[in-house]
Amino acid sequence: MSQSCAKFISLEGSEGVGKTTAINELCQYLDAKGIRYVRTREPGGSAFAEKLRALLLDPDTAINVDTELLLMFAARADHLHQTILPALDAGVWVVCDRFLDSTLAYQGYGREHGDDAILKKIAALSEHFVPRLPDMTLWLDLDVQIGMERAAKRSAKDRFEALEIAFFERVRAGFATQAAANPDRIHRIDASGAPDDVLAQMVAVLGV
Amino acid sequence: MSQSCAKFISLEGSEGVGKTTAINELCQYLDAKGIRYVRTREPGGSAFAEKLRALLLDPDTAINVDTELLLMFAARADHLHQTILPALDAGVWVVCDRFLDSTLAYQGYGREHGDDAILKKIAALSEHFVPRLPDMTLWLDLDVQIGMERAAKRSAKDRFEALEIAFFERVRAGFATQAAANPDRIHRIDASGAPDDVLAQMVAVLGV
Repeated sequence: MSQSCAKFISLEGSEGVGKTTAINELCQYLDAKGIRYVRTREPGGSAFAEKLRALLLDPDTAINVDTELLLMFAARADHLHQTILPALDAGVWVVCDRFLDSTLAYQGYGREHGDDAILKKIAALSEHFVPRLPDMTLWLDLDVQIGMERAAKRSAKDRFEALEIAFFERVRAGFATQAAANPDRIHRIDASGAPDDVLAQMVAVLGV
Repeated sequence: MSQSCAKFISLEGSEGVGKTTAINELCQYLDAKGIRYVRTREPGGSAFAEKLRALLLDPDTAINVDTELLLMFAARADHLHQTILPALDAGVWVVCDRFLDSTLAYQGYGREHGDDAILKKIAALSEHFVPRLPDMTLWLDLDVQIGMERAAKRSAKDRFEALEIAFFERVRAGFATQAAANPDRIHRIDASGAPDDVLAQMVAVLGV
């Protein structure tokens, strides 16, 4: 009894692009339109996946890339089966802070020397363990230096935020590569303007 | 500087076959021979993988099969990179209580209706995330009813031990299928006899 009208939307972008503000604005807009939605996030978004999130983001966690990838997809599998798919089946929209594209950008493209082996591993995991992709992905894009300055104003860094600027340049390029490869799904949003400008772009893409 | 003389040995078998006793006996034998080894186990075998083991075996954990498989392989990746591969590289043997064959038998063959989709997922995970298989796998085999009676004498059941006898019959058949498909690696050990009989069979297979 899947209701095709319910949309699965993910928001992507690297540090300091204003993703949280954008999601707040988008959810207020959906509220005003009377559209029912679940607001969720990755890694996490279900009780068990949030346990895995705590492990993944713990600055004391030192794991190899294989372990990190498998944990990300374990969390995603639980999130999909416990939260996302049941919501969509019930006709409820899903607004998700990060999804598969973040794994590609951070664990794949973010590494030095653009590791093709890791991208192949992510592709294999996606093929076997991600039965549903977002209908629409809003990629909030911003100059990395500006984003880093915004992020620096916040509190203590987690394990991913503690990485250097060259890493985030690769992450941004990774999102751009993904967007070019998936033009029907991934839409670039210019995140340099004010919140109402960002919202207007998102609403135009969503068509609601 | 991998030293090919160091062997990676896994021990497999379902509940109550006497696996712990057999590993104790084998380790005493290796001690007497002056062979250096690491004794380890799955899921677990490294600090981070033991954290995942606690999640996996917790009777309160209710997760779908995809999440379970991915967690098993996340633990395995950490175990391989932190414990198994460094030991083998240093010329130290590895004696491992369960490895990949248990995942195939429990998460794959153990399910009703012999789920080919799950076996394909396990094969994909193995291909991308298991860079080294055991040189030799000792499969301790015993009538399921006898094994269950032995296991029932122990303390509280974990999440896997709480399953029913039909499940363990499928697990045993799964080990048999794996052994038939990998005759050079997997060796059946008749676990119905006394510990010294089981040890004698294991030593004969190992050739040490």
